[in-house]
Amino acid sequence: MPELRQEPITGNWVIIATERNKRPSDFQARHEERKGGVCPFCKGNEKLTPPEITAYREAGTHPDEPGWWIRVVPNKFAALDNKSTDSEISRNFYTSMNGNGAHEVIIESPEHDQSIEQHDPVQMQEIFRAWRDRLRALMARTPIRYVQIFKNAGAIAGASLEHPHSQVIAAPLIPTVIENELEGARAFFVDRGLCPYCEMIAHEEAAGDRLIAGNQQFIAFCPYASRFPFEITILPRRHQADFSGLDDSMLQDLSAIVKVTMQKLTASLSRPPYNLMLHTAPAGFTGAPYYHWRLEILPRLTIVAGFEWGTGIYINPTPPETAAKYLRETAI
Amino acid sequence: MPELRQEPITGNWVIIATERNKRPSDFQARHEERKGGVCPFCKGNEKLTPPEITAYREAGTHPDEPGWWIRVVPNKFAALDNKSTDSEISRNFYTSMNGNGAHEVIIESPEHDQSIEQHDPVQMQEIFRAWRDRLRALMARTPIRYVQIFKNAGAIAGASLEHPHSQVIAAPLIPTVIENELEGARAFFVDRGLCPYCEMIAHEEAAGDRLIAGNQQFIAFCPYASRFPFEITILPRRHQADFSGLDDSMLQDLSAIVKVTMQKLTASLSRPPYNLMLHTAPAGFTGAPYYHWRLEILPRLTIVAGFEWGTGIYINPTPPETAAKYLRETAI
Repeated sequence: MPELRQEPITGNWVIIATERNKRPSDFQARHEERKGGVCPFCKGNEKLTPPEITAYREAGTHPDEPGWWIRVVPNKFAALDNKSTDSEISRNFYTSMNGNGAHEVIIESPEHDQSIEQHDPVQMQEIFRAWRDRLRALMARTPIRYVQIFKNAGAIAGASLEHPHSQVIAAPLIPTVIENELEGARAFFVDRGLCPYCEMIAHEEAAGDRLIAGNQQFIAFCPYASRFPFEITILPRRHQADFSGLDDSMLQDLSAIVKVTMQKLTASLSRPPYNLMLHTAPAGFTGAPYYHWRLEILPRLTIVAGFEWGTGIYINPTPPETAAKYLRETAI
Repeated sequence: MPELRQEPITGNWVIIATERNKRPSDFQARHEERKGGVCPFCKGNEKLTPPEITAYREAGTHPDEPGWWIRVVPNKFAALDNKSTDSEISRNFYTSMNGNGAHEVIIESPEHDQSIEQHDPVQMQEIFRAWRDRLRALMARTPIRYVQIFKNAGAIAGASLEHPHSQVIAAPLIPTVIENELEGARAFFVDRGLCPYCEMIAHEEAAGDRLIAGNQQFIAFCPYASRFPFEITILPRRHQADFSGLDDSMLQDLSAIVKVTMQKLTASLSRPPYNLMLHTAPAGFTGAPYYHWRLEILPRLTIVAGFEWGTGIYINPTPPETAAKYLRETAI
């Protein structure tokens, strides 16, 4: 069973994935993306995955058979699962918790060679609809307190399968990254009476030099303190802490801005590996006036090394103003 | 001039290395370690580096000429420099600071093909003596508040040159990783009246299953909440917040434990890429009864991906008890 352990000084958590239990010899050919062979995520190969959790599929078709356009399955190598109902914390010098949660894969298309910016607008909306629906379903489950939805694209960014997919990990705790954001945002709100993300949108629109794209409901920009070259933030203009609240009109605008932003990124950097993450409110904070959900896109162009691990300070060789200018001016 | 920028919500800092100013086309062949050609760190090639800051060299030899066994030079591509004396913080919605500091390279040997575990014990002591002396020299300089000493080994771990070297970056602020450690340790001390790192040593010795090696003054183990497979912590047994306080007898024991630990790591994982970082007290905290310097070794065997970036929770497929057992039992 996976075990969550807490570092006693920083409060950071790790997942000890005991079922993987990797030995030294397992760390040899690790930078390989699985290519060729039979893809378990392609249409027609539904029996190669565990039974589907849900799917958006044509009327009259059956689970674990073709006819779907989005399919959600359990991750075969789950970082967290629900094999135990006990998730109590043991307190001593060290703290741990049973790794009670869920780990799912959202297969974004029946087609193998469809990268995110190539989806038609309707399919893109269906992907984000699946994100929202899995978030709603998992947040309703005890003892889930946070759901991380993310996408790894390219072997360097951690994708072990090429077929387009995103992942969902539901955890019984609030991760420190999110806790730090909540605490920083809360302090800002106490001080100034405003959501700092709403303020950020106002500042970015006024400055303009970090903007990439915008539409009625969303804005895409390279953040002021970008840790990575070509890092991108996408924020809804209207205050909303929880991604679950996404309605159909927002789905349309979100899909449109992600498509145009990813098209520009792909064209500027010849299809770079990247990680795409949703940040959203944890349980108990979905109505917070100071938190604001967002998408974060991290192209993996630089190497995180000793200085970054030691300090948490990232050295970014491309000012976000320069990156945004390239992206703005890239024709798509 | 490099610019330090603060993320307004988390308080995390980044260095915008404006002088590197990388464009999209610069991110192509980035996973290459420079091999072959002329190595600027080899003996005889002293003129290929900027003039040396200091060196440990034979009597009668001259700066920037052979005769040295340890040589310290400015980093040609400095992340921080001291070209400006102004390091004031501008406060608005966004905060920034001039990147006033230093970035040095410690060349660990005149020989190109000497990896850390191969040094003879005396050379190893000289490396750590250089670490200590640069820490002392830089911490005495205004406005330096933290000095990060680290070593990247292998291209995947961020080393751009093969010749053994470590790096020193001096910053005008206390990094968030260190601030979080200080805050967590302080809270523990307030609560229990003990240094949590001293307590950790006692717990690890009592448990025994995560121990790798030990001698009179140091202990090496895989930490309880290891983020990475085969992650290693080395702690001095006696309470000491500041690495500057390292005396000659400690130098000897530190070198001995690093040598044996790195020999075991190299043998177990066939010379893995790794980052090695010193954590030590920042300015104003050198006498803290709750902080304790340490070395952290992170073998780079797994890929940090969307889940880790989004949450700060690392998925570690090798329990530290398993890793420590391998390392303990590896004959050297």
